[in-house]
Amino acid sequence: MQIVIIGAEAAGMSAAAKARRTAPDADITVFEQGSVVSFGACGLPYFVGGFFDDASYMAERSVEQFRESGIDLRTAHQVLKVDPARKAITVRDLSEGREFVQPYDKLMVATGASVVRPPIEGLDLERVHFVKTLEDGLTLRRLAERKECQDVVVIGAGYIGLEMVEALHEQGKRVRLIELAERVLAESFDEEVSELIQQELTRKGIAMHLGEKVRALKGQLAVEQVTTDKGSYPADLVIVATGVRPTTAFLDDSGLDRLENGAIVIDDQGRSSEPDIYAAGDCATVFHRIRQQPVYIPLATTANKLGRLIGENLCGAQKRFPGTLGSAAVKVLGVEAGRTGVSEQEAKALGRDTKTVVINDKNTTNYVPNQQDLRIKLIYDAKTKVILGGQVAGGLGAVLRVDTLAAAIHGGMTTEDLGMLDLCYAPPFARTWDALNVAGNVAK
Amino acid sequence: MQIVIIGAEAAGMSAAAKARRTAPDADITVFEQGSVVSFGACGLPYFVGGFFDDASYMAERSVEQFRESGIDLRTAHQVLKVDPARKAITVRDLSEGREFVQPYDKLMVATGASVVRPPIEGLDLERVHFVKTLEDGLTLRRLAERKECQDVVVIGAGYIGLEMVEALHEQGKRVRLIELAERVLAESFDEEVSELIQQELTRKGIAMHLGEKVRALKGQLAVEQVTTDKGSYPADLVIVATGVRPTTAFLDDSGLDRLENGAIVIDDQGRSSEPDIYAAGDCATVFHRIRQQPVYIPLATTANKLGRLIGENLCGAQKRFPGTLGSAAVKVLGVEAGRTGVSEQEAKALGRDTKTVVINDKNTTNYVPNQQDLRIKLIYDAKTKVILGGQVAGGLGAVLRVDTLAAAIHGGMTTEDLGMLDLCYAPPFARTWDALNVAGNVAK
Repeated sequence: MQIVIIGAEAAGMSAAAKARRTAPDADITVFEQGSVVSFGACGLPYFVGGFFDDASYMAERSVEQFRESGIDLRTAHQVLKVDPARKAITVRDLSEGREFVQPYDKLMVATGASVVRPPIEGLDLERVHFVKTLEDGLTLRRLAERKECQDVVVIGAGYIGLEMVEALHEQGKRVRLIELAERVLAESFDEEVSELIQQELTRKGIAMHLGEKVRALKGQLAVEQVTTDKGSYPADLVIVATGVRPTTAFLDDSGLDRLENGAIVIDDQGRSSEPDIYAAGDCATVFHRIRQQPVYIPLATTANKLGRLIGENLCGAQKRFPGTLGSAAVKVLGVEAGRTGVSEQEAKALGRDTKTVVINDKNTTNYVPNQQDLRIKLIYDAKTKVILGGQVAGGLGAVLRVDTLAAAIHGGMTTEDLGMLDLCYAPPFARTWDALNVAGNVAK
Repeated sequence: MQIVIIGAEAAGMSAAAKARRTAPDADITVFEQGSVVSFGACGLPYFVGGFFDDASYMAERSVEQFRESGIDLRTAHQVLKVDPARKAITVRDLSEGREFVQPYDKLMVATGASVVRPPIEGLDLERVHFVKTLEDGLTLRRLAERKECQDVVVIGAGYIGLEMVEALHEQGKRVRLIELAERVLAESFDEEVSELIQQELTRKGIAMHLGEKVRALKGQLAVEQVTTDKGSYPADLVIVATGVRPTTAFLDDSGLDRLENGAIVIDDQGRSSEPDIYAAGDCATVFHRIRQQPVYIPLATTANKLGRLIGENLCGAQKRFPGTLGSAAVKVLGVEAGRTGVSEQEAKALGRDTKTVVINDKNTTNYVPNQQDLRIKLIYDAKTKVILGGQVAGGLGAVLRVDTLAAAIHGGMTTEDLGMLDLCYAPPFARTWDALNVAGNVAK
């Protein structure tokens, strides 16, 4: 059997490795356009911030390790076209310049996503950088360590944007954050939580520009100034973190069902609208357990999980993914924030009759040194009280409490169940009533 | 309506406060033998260890606060007898020495537990202390701060014993831990986890004596030496932490169903074998969600939860407790450990056909500074793979991961569900596959 996988990042390499273990006799070929495999971009802010020095830590495994395990991994190979009728793909060997046709029995598309280039003038100036590739990381780290690079502007207040703010703050820069929306993390978090992050950023001296639109980057060869609809600011370095979109243009003639943004629609087995073509990772949708629909939430966790599951299904299994909850987390300076299930705005978009509750509590017993604040928001069904979503932000332990909510939501728990859930207690870990219990009990 | 509550610690005062809010017109009388109310003994090790100085932090609320809320709280009143047939109790006013009969419509027994006095000679010497009351805490703190008090022996390696070891270690003492069982926390944790705690204790210089029986404490007025079946050791201070038993001797003629150790058996509404008598806290059993039987697991969390629930039921509600999981946690020097559901030994005692898995993983991504070890053990049904218990020990985040397991077990999740559960990821909080996912996936 010939298994072909396009793309060698999280989803593709998880699938390849699992398929290798599942079907020792199958031919497994992976085509990767670049030269680096199983690279996790989530490490970039920590590398740029100087938290570690060895860039190879950001890749799970090397090309050689995959090849040694019996996977025919071909880097510098771009896939130009997929032909489901002939069950074949057209590939260009970028080093030799030749094209060839590769047949498949089972195909997986795992081409990931590409950075969105926002409609801003001057994006091609020097010292303007996206945050996506290993090269981006190496360049940004070099620039961040230069003393003369003082004023840094980060455009975009999503996860990566916020982590880059922290990284450059750690490197001693004057950091300015510009975001088009009225608040940070506006897509995934509700206002009660995002405001805690904003307060922390302001407290730590980050210049905050919310609801502000960048129009142009200006300079001679390198960027010197950022101009928005409200003002102009000095910039020795500009980091653009305005999101990603699926890398699926090469599928335009394939006939595969895709969302408007290009994401390949898959079912709970990871299969596209073509039965022998699977897809996962940042190029595809994922089924949402609460929203009960395919959604585009590109996250490393889901890429790995669906990759592993598809690795088995490529070999004939029929494993089903129980669905994403969109669980995600970020640390911004001294604040942790995490979310799972649906946000209040997502629940409204679904037209569900929901209620919410927000509580402020503490992460440890009063007499433990360094007790910190926690804020918890629950979104739940107005009638049944079944919890549909949750967000926690604050000090130590905020994000791991979101994991408990994820398990609760996965299992269909009500707010009343949560109020009485038998959570651990010892003074350094919680109050006798954990903050999650309190949130469940306060919900009416 | 006359509601009477015996005992003013966690369970009793939770019930009183909730009943006060639920039934504004009811007469609520609480009899407390001592002078301190809603005192949490779990703070004692932290107070003795010098983590905080104001002993009043250990009480949730004061006598005055309860009285102001309209609860007739009478301290220094001992209840001598309960007569279910007459629906009355006999009370002695300890300050005036007189006895009287108090009728009730609904009664709650919340008398807590008393320390077990082990069969050791010399327990009444000076500088030999139990860890239960505020007075114990004040005395121990004073002794711990004396320079000439150098050699401390802790007898008993349960939660309180281990926390006292940490406290005295923090105060700069030479600490020796003597435990009859072959390992620490032998009642609640399996060996794979308890050994991590033992390693930490040894690493930090605690003299460990496991499987060793204390026979006598020796000295003139004050203790000077501890003698066991294996040797004799110097002691300037001895702390006895060998467990508790329910304070229920005054119920001997009441006819209430009790366990062999004296714990009042209650149902899932908190009711004893007499329909108008409720009980909760360290004097009573609690229904175990996995073991499906009343068990004696005296914990502050359960006392508070059942207290609150009984507070409503005393006023006519019929709330049901979903059951304990025996979730509990402890921090011992640099190691966290938590457990929920059944241990392997408890599962065996139930006669269930179970399997277990133990994994070693990390709490953060590799490149995050201060990455720490985690060890996870799952106990699950051999056939259905439903998770029945879990234990986690190691670095930061071990215990909060047990809370996620508690929610998973409460909801009936299988190991496969756990493997695919959508847990949060960002480099400072977890690996892309959280250690819990890995444990779920490794379980076969």
